[in-house]
Amino acid sequence: MKLFHWMRKGSVTVPKGFLATGMYCGIKKSGKTDSCLIYSEAPCVAAATFTVNRAKAWPVLFSMNTIQNPVHRAILANSGNANCFNGPKGREAVEESVDTLHHALDISRRKILVASTGVIGRPFPTDKFKKGIPEMVRMLSKSGDSLAAEGILTTDTVTKELAVEFRIGHKWVRLGGIAKGSGMAHPNMATMLCFMTTDLAIQKGLLERALREAVRRTFNRLSIDNDMSTNDTVFVLANGLAANPPIAERGEDYEKFVSILTDFCAEISRKMVEDGEGVTKVCEIFVEKARNEKQAELIARQVANSMLVKTMFTGADPNWGRVIGAVGATLVPVNWNTLEIYFDQVRVFSGGRGRMSGLQHIRKILRKKFFTLRIVLHQGESAISFLTSDLTSKYVRINSSYTS
Amino acid sequence: MKLFHWMRKGSVTVPKGFLATGMYCGIKKSGKTDSCLIYSEAPCVAAATFTVNRAKAWPVLFSMNTIQNPVHRAILANSGNANCFNGPKGREAVEESVDTLHHALDISRRKILVASTGVIGRPFPTDKFKKGIPEMVRMLSKSGDSLAAEGILTTDTVTKELAVEFRIGHKWVRLGGIAKGSGMAHPNMATMLCFMTTDLAIQKGLLERALREAVRRTFNRLSIDNDMSTNDTVFVLANGLAANPPIAERGEDYEKFVSILTDFCAEISRKMVEDGEGVTKVCEIFVEKARNEKQAELIARQVANSMLVKTMFTGADPNWGRVIGAVGATLVPVNWNTLEIYFDQVRVFSGGRGRMSGLQHIRKILRKKFFTLRIVLHQGESAISFLTSDLTSKYVRINSSYTS
Repeated sequence: MKLFHWMRKGSVTVPKGFLATGMYCGIKKSGKTDSCLIYSEAPCVAAATFTVNRAKAWPVLFSMNTIQNPVHRAILANSGNANCFNGPKGREAVEESVDTLHHALDISRRKILVASTGVIGRPFPTDKFKKGIPEMVRMLSKSGDSLAAEGILTTDTVTKELAVEFRIGHKWVRLGGIAKGSGMAHPNMATMLCFMTTDLAIQKGLLERALREAVRRTFNRLSIDNDMSTNDTVFVLANGLAANPPIAERGEDYEKFVSILTDFCAEISRKMVEDGEGVTKVCEIFVEKARNEKQAELIARQVANSMLVKTMFTGADPNWGRVIGAVGATLVPVNWNTLEIYFDQVRVFSGGRGRMSGLQHIRKILRKKFFTLRIVLHQGESAISFLTSDLTSKYVRINSSYTS
Repeated sequence: MKLFHWMRKGSVTVPKGFLATGMYCGIKKSGKTDSCLIYSEAPCVAAATFTVNRAKAWPVLFSMNTIQNPVHRAILANSGNANCFNGPKGREAVEESVDTLHHALDISRRKILVASTGVIGRPFPTDKFKKGIPEMVRMLSKSGDSLAAEGILTTDTVTKELAVEFRIGHKWVRLGGIAKGSGMAHPNMATMLCFMTTDLAIQKGLLERALREAVRRTFNRLSIDNDMSTNDTVFVLANGLAANPPIAERGEDYEKFVSILTDFCAEISRKMVEDGEGVTKVCEIFVEKARNEKQAELIARQVANSMLVKTMFTGADPNWGRVIGAVGATLVPVNWNTLEIYFDQVRVFSGGRGRMSGLQHIRKILRKKFFTLRIVLHQGESAISFLTSDLTSKYVRINSSYTS
């Protein structure tokens, strides 16, 4: 039985009681939508994960503190400026924006979460953003979710909008989300923002636990390049309006929700990698029959981040030796004689040596937009998956002139 | 007083008693020189460092064993085929080649060191190589060092040949070396081969110690991409023909030699990075006033390998926020308020914020072929340097079609 079904359209306003909007406040030079507001008509519990980079943007520092409050009502975000390492005025920008939203929505400052994405180190245009906030509050609506999704994009080429519906205790529950990804998608999340909403009734502590679990297996297992952002933020708000029997312990309902949330985040991850800077191909790496999950992840991450593996994908070049080189570079003890490597269903390495014939067929696989790379260690029973992309000249072009 | 002076020309045959040559044995499709032989007329002590990749090529496995013998006489190497993960025939290829050289030179098999570089997983053309070996022995000469240097190149565009002269105990001593670098130059050496010769008299144990120290500070601190080869090998042979008082303890002469060997390897490193795949710019990163060398190296390595930093160099884009992002990603505790960042002499970050004016001047620095990036932590007294390069579309082009 399927645990959930995807909604044909909509995202953060699909769950009951959520409104959203986005607009152009004058932050981006391009004139594109650069601001986003999500609001719940009912009080929410909230959970978050943030970048583990030691260098953290002001909105991250603010939200890391605010998230500890018991109740939340709104997420305020902008793109075009990371509000990071721009001096004490950056912190004031966050405080003044939150203050403005507090007045406009008539909710406590302590119930507001914030996030930013964009260039590091630029002065934040506080006045422009503050001017836009009351206007966004007026615009809040059930149909504003696409605008909200646009408001957080940077070099993304498409919005990421998703929603699912599922049953908990005979009640229909909805989960929606918007995200931005693109560059720097490694090793712990991307410069990614992901805002999720649900009308599920759940205890805050369990929502936090569920989110950590889902993020660990999805956003923390994808690679576009080998960088880590100062601004990564994932929020989930749950307002309980689905009126399900509240999830208050780690029973069946909780496990079901974790599973759905993980699948949901996995799909967002895939959309982010697909739309990564200059990406033309997505490869899902499976490391199987490893001694433990940690070793499997070390190997997957090394292969996923190898520039030689990524450029091998770019050129559809069946040079599996680069995969071996990356596996060995992890220093995880590997038995080369039992190791097997597959592209899709085709085995290219086993018994300590590689396949020399049928390379044309492997080239065909590597020319696809999506393919799998399976690394089977035959040393245990642990398995994980990890998403990666090719590395193209376009990536280099995009990233060699980001601020200029 | 200068410790040594550079020779105007010559490399591995500059020290007394060494002969060398290179030739085309039919391994490379391109028809370019693909084989290299270095020979000492007198017995040598030898030292080596090898890739720490768990996946090791056959010649690496062979030489890791052979290097433990007390006396050596020759280095035999090839390019165009890594002789790696190509099944048991690869091991036989090494054994048969060594056997052939043993007969041709009339030296013990135990005195021969081997190395290979090129594509992984291809059958090794043993017969072609074996046929070339007696021919190479006949060709050995004082003027064959450039041919030897050519014989180990892969995607390198120029040979790396160096020699220096210095005094130990009133005797003139010479040190020469050839190398190949190019791609995969990280994180522990490159797909690099470096063969050095010297007529210094030194104990084997001290030669090993000196080499480890020099490699740690040079070849292990450079980055072209984030990969690690299966074939990295550094050899140094010392035949004692300079007739200096043998270095038998860690005194003044030993320290002087370590210092010269380190400078020598640093210069080879620079040549390798300059000639890295698609490289147009070299940046020397200094991490200064760190708590300890380990933290300094973690930071330097993360910045050196950041694809966003590398592409920032490519575009001469003064986006110092990417440097901050990379520093923070190491998880080394950093005081952002004392941290300073300089490009050449120009400070771009201090007091927790970046410079917003004079960006045009910084662009000018980043357009140079060589510039420095100084990260001053003000948390201690340790300092290290690390070489990195830009990341260009040409790198992507070269590496997306290496075997095809």
